[in-house]
Amino acid sequence: MVQEEGPASIAARFADAWNRHDMAAFAALFHVDASFVNRFGTYWRGVEQIVAGHAPIHETIYSDSTLTNEVADVDPISDDAAILHIWSRLSAGAAHPVGPHRVDTMILAVVTRRDGAWKIQALENVTLVNPRTGEPILRD
Amino acid sequence: MVQEEGPASIAARFADAWNRHDMAAFAALFHVDASFVNRFGTYWRGVEQIVAGHAPIHETIYSDSTLTNEVADVDPISDDAAILHIWSRLSAGAAHPVGPHRVDTMILAVVTRRDGAWKIQALENVTLVNPRTGEPILRD
Repeated sequence: MVQEEGPASIAARFADAWNRHDMAAFAALFHVDASFVNRFGTYWRGVEQIVAGHAPIHETIYSDSTLTNEVADVDPISDDAAILHIWSRLSAGAAHPVGPHRVDTMILAVVTRRDGAWKIQALENVTLVNPRTGEPILRD
Repeated sequence: MVQEEGPASIAARFADAWNRHDMAAFAALFHVDASFVNRFGTYWRGVEQIVAGHAPIHETIYSDSTLTNEVADVDPISDDAAILHIWSRLSAGAAHPVGPHRVDTMILAVVTRRDGAWKIQALENVTLVNPRTGEPILRD
């Protein structure tokens, strides 16, 4: 029997799917009824909407982007549910209209286990911003 | 026996505590080990940090602000845990350096029940933003 992947593995699997721009792998991260609120406050419900919201940017402005995720912490809710905080960094490339740049964000994800598989139930992302200027900031 | 308040009641209680600028009532919304990521990506852990992060703005720039919350949906995780999406609107007043204005956000909150009391376990907020301009937008 293959060792089960724990809830925190979502962070690396998310980055891997993003970096391969693989929407099938991306879809597999989410329960069918999952929710996703991106860093602009756009709210999608259901894996179909979530993928439909991401596929176009992987074909255009983020087609050469890379994403790295660092798990900040994991808070178990139950045997079948956990809360993840993930420091995330999106590095845009030449395909982006403003050229190469980085965006640092904090992801809150609720991951739950159904039928033995840990997947995302709900996720929200927020860009790190200077409260005084409203300008995006980087962690380092 | 008083009827138990359900998980969705957090939204109204959050707004009520905010609008009274009552940090004791605000603290009572959170489990002692709760996490909070505000709309600037600032990450606080534990109710003490969460209150310490909010108390100064209630004494200054948001001392005359009002907040309204509208529950978008409630997704049960278990009998003792639920995910809330909350459309939130912060109306700043004359005390704010830039004067009266509104900010619309989307809150993702994980609420859990311990010892019969539903409180916030984790919360993240994000400002609604136009992805093309980076400017804040309002829902209506």
